[in-house]
Amino acid sequence: MSVATSDGQTVSHMGREIAEQPAALRATIDALLPRRAEAARLAAQTREVLFIGRGTSDNAAVYGTYLIQAFAGRLATLASPSIATTYQSRVDLSGVLAVALSQSGRTEEIVETLTWARDCGAHTMAITNGADSPLADHAEITFVTQAGTERAVPATKTFTTQLAALAVLALGLGADLDPGELRDVPDAVEAMLSLPPDFDPIVTELASVPGVVVSGRGLAYSAALELALKLKEACYLHAMGLSYADLLHGPIAVVDAQTPAIVLAAQAGPTLAGSVELARRVTGAGAMAYGIGGGDQLAAACSRSLPGPQLPEWLAPMGLIVPGQLLTEALSRRLGLDPDSPRGLSKITQTG
Amino acid sequence: MSVATSDGQTVSHMGREIAEQPAALRATIDALLPRRAEAARLAAQTREVLFIGRGTSDNAAVYGTYLIQAFAGRLATLASPSIATTYQSRVDLSGVLAVALSQSGRTEEIVETLTWARDCGAHTMAITNGADSPLADHAEITFVTQAGTERAVPATKTFTTQLAALAVLALGLGADLDPGELRDVPDAVEAMLSLPPDFDPIVTELASVPGVVVSGRGLAYSAALELALKLKEACYLHAMGLSYADLLHGPIAVVDAQTPAIVLAAQAGPTLAGSVELARRVTGAGAMAYGIGGGDQLAAACSRSLPGPQLPEWLAPMGLIVPGQLLTEALSRRLGLDPDSPRGLSKITQTG
Repeated sequence: MSVATSDGQTVSHMGREIAEQPAALRATIDALLPRRAEAARLAAQTREVLFIGRGTSDNAAVYGTYLIQAFAGRLATLASPSIATTYQSRVDLSGVLAVALSQSGRTEEIVETLTWARDCGAHTMAITNGADSPLADHAEITFVTQAGTERAVPATKTFTTQLAALAVLALGLGADLDPGELRDVPDAVEAMLSLPPDFDPIVTELASVPGVVVSGRGLAYSAALELALKLKEACYLHAMGLSYADLLHGPIAVVDAQTPAIVLAAQAGPTLAGSVELARRVTGAGAMAYGIGGGDQLAAACSRSLPGPQLPEWLAPMGLIVPGQLLTEALSRRLGLDPDSPRGLSKITQTG
Repeated sequence: MSVATSDGQTVSHMGREIAEQPAALRATIDALLPRRAEAARLAAQTREVLFIGRGTSDNAAVYGTYLIQAFAGRLATLASPSIATTYQSRVDLSGVLAVALSQSGRTEEIVETLTWARDCGAHTMAITNGADSPLADHAEITFVTQAGTERAVPATKTFTTQLAALAVLALGLGADLDPGELRDVPDAVEAMLSLPPDFDPIVTELASVPGVVVSGRGLAYSAALELALKLKEACYLHAMGLSYADLLHGPIAVVDAQTPAIVLAAQAGPTLAGSVELARRVTGAGAMAYGIGGGDQLAAACSRSLPGPQLPEWLAPMGLIVPGQLLTEALSRRLGLDPDSPRGLSKITQTG
């Protein structure tokens, strides 16, 4: 299938990879859902989860922390890799399931932090596209995402397939959620891609702003962080990903006529009311609010809006990011940039 | 004492409160250092620390996570308050010391999250300026910061006294560090304030940029996040606080001739080399790099620089934020804004 771009140009690798997500999600869910008992056996020896990731993988991990804490009753938090790599400290990690995420499985910092976690007493798991990678070699179990080769530097199918792997992990940890709903995700994403909305007015408006705030709460916060990262990488836009609670604690001051907000929310769920309220506050301050998802309620509170996925809240981030990816790709080309090759970045990032 | 502002104007509340930090730090350290055994007794019943905070308090908590993990051998991570307040989920927190930070002790979300943590089995501690606040009422022990009344909305002495309280907590948890060095902090901060450097060239340059990246790693990351928050609150600047590892994983693309980077580092320690390398990369890309601290090495790699505190790395964030606070206050006034009263913000923030 091909993505219908707003200006009919040849699509970039990024555009093609956005379109490959339904197939990648289907393959990932098919491969991993039968393995949830394996994750359960490993997790039975632990009481909490500690995620290790950077960039897109870190944004995916944020989804994992909310999903596991909200539905599986376990503490799930984010590691600070520099404790392992820079401070080289020993931390007691007995009873911890350390889960490292990396597209390639070759980012040295992430491999090093996972082996550190093992040496500190943690059980270890990898979520990676690299079946034969060093990360997979060092983990007790590996969930291989079936994203295939990703050529654009801004990750797209990596992110959504990582979320699918994390949803399987949450089910393995006993989350009181329906695995059948996870199987519906590829179709829901395909439906969004086959009838893309008209991005053009939003692309035109974003092309002339100095920055944008991207906000979501709870599970949707991960998609907000990821959209902000895409806009920074591919459009060089000063995009700040913030939960609405963090936004109201200070950064709301930057929202004005020049700084719009993009608000992401599932069509239902406990964070919808706050997202609608935030959109009203933004437009009330004279700024533009762009909604992604959130059903009729969020659309009514926003200046412009894009439909979200037909998915329950726990799975919505896999669909909520999709209009954001399409918007990023279109905005990058509108700005005369190459979405596939942002300046200063290469595909496998090494940080010391 | 008074702050020597670069343009001789009457100082704001924010300016006065910046200047009050040596006294506030002295009073806080005097009050809390003798109580570290109390924290030790509470912590003995737990194995790890979970911090609860928003805004400035969350940035202070980041310092706590690095300090405790790097020097006290315990896992220390950040809570997601919406798990308590929005999802209202039960999470197993047995063996966890939950530490909530709030200037006023009256932010409902933080009080609610601490009581949730207690109900989930955690032991509880508060760090607050509000001795008689609801937060203090609900915690097993409270470290009261001696910041006095803070009238400017952008917190300054709240942050540095919270860091001092966290340093005492880390000592209580057995961190292999010298309490005598903590006692030197007020004098080191006073020395910085009594001879403020010439901010004027940096203020002039920042007055015309659309955004700025603020970077630090490890312990200094907390000061970078806090400076970015100050610049957003008081100057409406699109300021992104990032560790240099995160920066190299994508957002580095936004750094260009229009987007300078501010790099913070202690004068010595394991993160200095990476900070110097980042500054070189930024200037190599044709952008301005402003250094805060980092000694001669960082200064040599930057376009302009401000001296940091004469403090060891573990305490440096209490001094590294000070030039950032002064810079923010001066830039806010230069832009014709009121640093004390940013639009859209009130002193006690309530988020649902």
